[in-house]
Amino acid sequence: MIDNKTIQTMLARKSVRKYTGRVPDDEAVRTVVRAGQQAPFASQLYSVLLQRGGKAPFGAPLWFVICVDAHKLERFMELRDWKLVTNDLSLLLLGMQDAAYMAQNMVIAAESIGMGSCFLGEGSLSAGRIRALAKQYKLPPRVLPMVELVMGYPDEDFPPRPRYPLDFMLFEGEYPSLSDEQVRLAVDVMDEGYLAQDYYKHAKAKIALEDGRPDSYDYDSYSWTEHISRKWGQWMPDAADMLGALRERGFDLRPERDTAAEAGSHDDQ
Amino acid sequence: MIDNKTIQTMLARKSVRKYTGRVPDDEAVRTVVRAGQQAPFASQLYSVLLQRGGKAPFGAPLWFVICVDAHKLERFMELRDWKLVTNDLSLLLLGMQDAAYMAQNMVIAAESIGMGSCFLGEGSLSAGRIRALAKQYKLPPRVLPMVELVMGYPDEDFPPRPRYPLDFMLFEGEYPSLSDEQVRLAVDVMDEGYLAQDYYKHAKAKIALEDGRPDSYDYDSYSWTEHISRKWGQWMPDAADMLGALRERGFDLRPERDTAAEAGSHDDQ
Repeated sequence: MIDNKTIQTMLARKSVRKYTGRVPDDEAVRTVVRAGQQAPFASQLYSVLLQRGGKAPFGAPLWFVICVDAHKLERFMELRDWKLVTNDLSLLLLGMQDAAYMAQNMVIAAESIGMGSCFLGEGSLSAGRIRALAKQYKLPPRVLPMVELVMGYPDEDFPPRPRYPLDFMLFEGEYPSLSDEQVRLAVDVMDEGYLAQDYYKHAKAKIALEDGRPDSYDYDSYSWTEHISRKWGQWMPDAADMLGALRERGFDLRPERDTAAEAGSHDDQ
Repeated sequence: MIDNKTIQTMLARKSVRKYTGRVPDDEAVRTVVRAGQQAPFASQLYSVLLQRGGKAPFGAPLWFVICVDAHKLERFMELRDWKLVTNDLSLLLLGMQDAAYMAQNMVIAAESIGMGSCFLGEGSLSAGRIRALAKQYKLPPRVLPMVELVMGYPDEDFPPRPRYPLDFMLFEGEYPSLSDEQVRLAVDVMDEGYLAQDYYKHAKAKIALEDGRPDSYDYDSYSWTEHISRKWGQWMPDAADMLGALRERGFDLRPERDTAAEAGSHDDQ
C-alpha cells in the first residue's frame, strides 16, 4: 500500500455514533462543503441542507441532508428558454451520482480536519422520511432528500470496520464464477471481523426475526452477514411506497405508457 | 477555509482527459481500491471491474467499471438460508450509494498519489453501454455497471473547474425561494468561469441543436449552462430503454401490480 496522509485518513474512517459537545465553526462547515463541491459531477444536481443546534442523532452538532436537486437545473433552463425533457429515471440516476460523490467528499474532508460523521438510515431514506424532510425544509418540486449525514467531533475511538477481501470485489478482465467456498471465505472475513470488535453486542443492534422464525443467534454468533440477511430478507418487499414518495418529489419512474395515460399526452420518441 | 493536504487534494481535483504512458503498478491499484472500500456502506453492494493495457479513452492505462452488486449479497444470503425480498427499487437506490461512495474515494485516493481520473459518460451509463459491459465482463444477474472511471498519470494541467457559489447550494434551516436574480448570479459564475478557462473551445464540445433550432452561440459565448441545457433539453426523453436495461440486469422498477401480473404471483405485503 502506498502511504500518505490522505490515504491514512481514508483507511482510518469509520462511522461515528458519539460526539463531543464541541460545535464546529463556520469555517469548518464551509471547508467541508466546498471540498464536497469539487467532486466530479454530471450537472451539479445537488443541494445540501443543514440544521445546527438541533437534536441530531448521536448528539452530533451538524445535521446535513444531501439532496438530488433538479429544481435549480429547471430554473436556469427556463431562463435560457429550455424545457427539461429527459426522462425522470435517467435524471434520478445521474442526480444521485452527483449528490453521492459530493457527500463522500464531505465525509473525507471532515475526517481530515478532525471531525467524524455518520450516514443515517443505513445509507438511504424511507418514503416516510423523504416526506417529512420535504415538509420540514419546504423543498420545491424536483428536490429529493437522498441521504442524511451527521457530523461533529468524535467522542469515541475504535478501529475501522472490516471490508470484503480485495479479491472478492476487484475483478480484472471478467466477473468470475464465484464458488460457494469463495463466498464462505468472504463471509468469514466479515463475520469474524465484526465479532472481534463486538460490534453488534456493543450496539445492541440485533434485528428481530419475523413470522415466528426461531432465533438461534446470540451476540457471540450474530454478525455482519446475518444482520444484512435479516434486512434484505425481511424489509421493504413492496416498492409502491418509495415509488409514491419519489413521484411526489417530482421523479416519476413509471413506464411511459402509464404516465402518458394519466397525463393524457405522449412523447413520440 | 481550513487547510491541509487532503483538503488541498480535494480542491485541486479535476477530470483528466490526457494521460502519460506511465503504467500504475499493482500497489497503486490496490491502494486506490482499498481506500475506496473504507467509504461508508449500507451493505457493500459493490464490485469493481478493471481492464488494463487496453484501449481506454484518453489513453488512460486503467479502466474501471464501478458496479452495483447484489449478486454477492444473494449468494451469501442463500448460504445462510435467506431469500432477498426487498423491492428492486430500494435495492438499486441503496446499492448506487454504496458504489458511488466507494467510487469517489477511489478518485481522491488516486489524486493523493499523483494520479488523475475521469468518470466517463457524464457520470452515468446508457442502456446500450450497460448491455455491452454486461456481455464483455460476463456479469451475473443483479450486477449493474453504474459508472466507468479511467485513471492514470496526468499529461495535462489546468485549474479546477468552477462550481456553484456556496449560497446557491448550502441551505440552512429551509430551502429558500430562489429569485430569478439569484439563479442568474449562479449562472454567471458558472458560465464566466468556464469561458475564462476556454473549456468548451478547447474540448470542441458544443452539443448540436435538434429540430432545426437556430444556433446563435459560438465558443466565445457557449458555456456551462447552455451546454447542460442542451443535454437535459434534448436527450433521453423516454425511460423505456433504461428501464429495460435495468430489468435485464435484475433490477425491475415496474410497480408491483405489473410485475405481479407477469409473474403470476403477488406479495401480500
